Amino acid sequence: MITKSALPTLDDASSLCDVVRSQGPLVQNITNYVAMTLSANVLLAAGASPAMVHAEEEVADFVRIASALVVNIGTLSPSWVASMGKAVHAAVEDGKPWVLDPVGCGATPYRTETARSLALLKPTVIRGNASEIIALAGASGAAPKGVDSAVSSHAAVGPARVLSRQIGAVIAITGETDFVVDANVTAAVEGGDPLMTTSTGVGCALSALTGAYVASCNDPFVATVSAMAVYAVAGRIAARGAGGPGDVPIRLCNALNLIDAEALRANAEIHPHNPA
Amino acid sequence: MITKSALPTLDDASSLCDVVRSQGPLVQNITNYVAMTLSANVLLAAGASPAMVHAEEEVADFVRIASALVVNIGTLSPSWVASMGKAVHAAVEDGKPWVLDPVGCGATPYRTETARSLALLKPTVIRGNASEIIALAGASGAAPKGVDSAVSSHAAVGPARVLSRQIGAVIAITGETDFVVDANVTAAVEGGDPLMTTSTGVGCALSALTGAYVASCNDPFVATVSAMAVYAVAGRIAARGAGGPGDVPIRLCNALNLIDAEALRANAEIHPHNPA
Amino acid sequence: MITKSALPTLDDASSLCDVVRSQGPLVQNITNYVAMTLSANVLLAAGASPAMVHAEEEVADFVRIASALVVNIGTLSPSWVASMGKAVHAAVEDGKPWVLDPVGCGATPYRTETARSLALLKPTVIRGNASEIIALAGASGAAPKGVDSAVSSHAAVGPARVLSRQIGAVIAITGETDFVVDANVTAAVEGGDPLMTTSTGVGCALSALTGAYVASCNDPFVATVSAMAVYAVAGRIAARGAGGPGDVPIRLCNALNLIDAEALRANAEIHPHNPA
Repeated sequence: MITKSALPTLDDASSLCDVVRSQGPLVQNITNYVAMTLSANVLLAAGASPAMVHAEEEVADFVRIASALVVNIGTLSPSWVASMGKAVHAAVEDGKPWVLDPVGCGATPYRTETARSLALLKPTVIRGNASEIIALAGASGAAPKGVDSAVSSHAAVGPARVLSRQIGAVIAITGETDFVVDANVTAAVEGGDPLMTTSTGVGCALSALTGAYVASCNDPFVATVSAMAVYAVAGRIAARGAGGPGDVPIRLCNALNLIDAEALRANAEIHPHNPA
Repeated sequence: MITKSALPTLDDASSLCDVVRSQGPLVQNITNYVAMTLSANVLLAAGASPAMVHAEEEVADFVRIASALVVNIGTLSPSWVASMGKAVHAAVEDGKPWVLDPVGCGATPYRTETARSLALLKPTVIRGNASEIIALAGASGAAPKGVDSAVSSHAAVGPARVLSRQIGAVIAITGETDFVVDANVTAAVEGGDPLMTTSTGVGCALSALTGAYVASCNDPFVATVSAMAVYAVAGRIAARGAGGPGDVPIRLCNALNLIDAEALRANAEIHPHNPA
Repeated sequence: MITKSALPTLDDASSLCDVVRSQGPLVQNITNYVAMTLSANVLLAAGASPAMVHAEEEVADFVRIASALVVNIGTLSPSWVASMGKAVHAAVEDGKPWVLDPVGCGATPYRTETARSLALLKPTVIRGNASEIIALAGASGAAPKGVDSAVSSHAAVGPARVLSRQIGAVIAITGETDFVVDANVTAAVEGGDPLMTTSTGVGCALSALTGAYVASCNDPFVATVSAMAVYAVAGRIAARGAGGPGDVPIRLCNALNLIDAEALRANAEIHPHNPA
């Protein structure tokens, strides 16, 4: 039986949101070309300090001054994969939290293998859509549509639980409902808006934001649930009155900048989820 | 004599717009760093599913799950050129349509040679500005201004006709008037707004959109004319009430999301063009 | 004693703004992935013609048709460093002005060494934040926070003066007050808005804009002060009525497009600065 008390509340999320703003953690990103700008802007809007640093020659040096590392395989190539490994090893050695975003895992063998190799290097958090998490867990039956999920987030909770027990990471599955899974507890975060799926890099930027939250909180489960809740609310506020998909990134950053406890309580819900 | 009946109407364009929305084709892009985000956002706003995948290790695997491929040489480097070749070969082998955007063809020998090599690999559609198409056709007298055209789109219709006959591709020349040329027919598409030229990547994103349209229609000429018309109308609607160039990408995506037959009829014209 | 007459006035800045609009200089950028799109859009909004060209195979050919070169080390890798060197040598050989943006200089040895090597290749202008300029000058005590400055722009004026005398470049330090330093004169430019620091790439895009201004004016000091003043005013106008950080890049481009002498006079100040 999962008790509600194991989960952070929306007020916990709000407090952590303020900690990020006051600490301004330096978050190093090795992320894809499409989502780099939005990821940096989301981090800035949330009060963190982003840096995009990927050269093998400097990734490890940079990890040493960063508070967290985010690795996103959206636009892969061999030299970047080498840098990812080097950066992750430095993070683990240095005790820095790191977040893996396995973009498109399951779409090609190269992508799946790269994601799986990285998943074995002790990520603090993995955030993906349902197809990606299912493919990463080695479960079958959910081939993605390119980098988009083919199934709903519910379908990945079971595989995420298994994966979390194997590798010891907190796993966030985003979708209509977001689920945050660790070995023993699953939180469901309700909020967000379908309009968020109509603009590119919105999921990737959430992985970046999760980096800022794990940098500012010793409990990765609490940090991840909080990041999902804050982002869902920002997305919901952004969608309200938006003129269309073009407005999403702009209004998302504007909303993130203003999130407070009241906005969280009015727009999101965190509750325990018992997988069937 | 070109008969009007050979051209798609604005209602045909509107129907195809709906087909793209209902099919949501997966469009693989190997495109430049500057235009990646807007290209993805334009595809999402039009109802398609974008993926930016360029590593030699996976391009061919990805082509197999994609419905169309878009190759844009905006920010070239040797490893990307190798990937472009590999992806194109997979597309041709697999019978998948592919679109070439020869950005800056004519500006440097490296760019011109790369564009010409790719043009020989049976692109379904080539979309560029007048200088690029003229340089690609090997005609003279229109050296580009970097990646911008030095001449009006009219000037490229003759060279495009010659090129189309040589390589069998539909050729779209965008500018104040857009022209779509194949071996026997030329359509002129009127619409758009000069404000579209004041924001980066707008042309590149149209090449991406063309990928979605050729993925959803067996006739590449009809698909290309339709993509030009839909985009011109979105651009015109976007420009109306815009505060300046900064608003262009946002409002363009918002408008694309809402295009319908009425908007097309009110804002564009498709007519036959007889080159002098 | 520095006399006020050595400094350009806001009316000089406005005139140069108009020269850029009428000449539309082609500005070649080798810049980071995060800031590429905004840099291109800022150049377009200011009336210049941007091109992002970085392959070793073509950088030197492109410099020959460009009016200025901008080199920004934000997202470094060895092949790009090689291209930067090749492009810079072509620019110097060809007598084309070039601007260096030493992003994150001081954060890692790789970054510091690359920036210093480039600084020895006769840049016309160097633009950075205080930490970057201090690290580039080899002064101590201002380790950056990743790519963000840890100290105020005032702190870098002395080191910038020393550096300017060593290498003969105009040096712009941006921050709450912007300083433009050459061997003998320092201008302080007041304007801007703190909101400009909440969106990524805004500083990098100013380096790109500086490229357009040095391309259109024989006096690099006048050009650089003018670019700082125009950008500060655009930033201030952009911040007015902005809904948050998400609006910054859009409103900045909209404002740049409309800057005139009146807006400059109402929103900025250029005055001499005597370092203590």
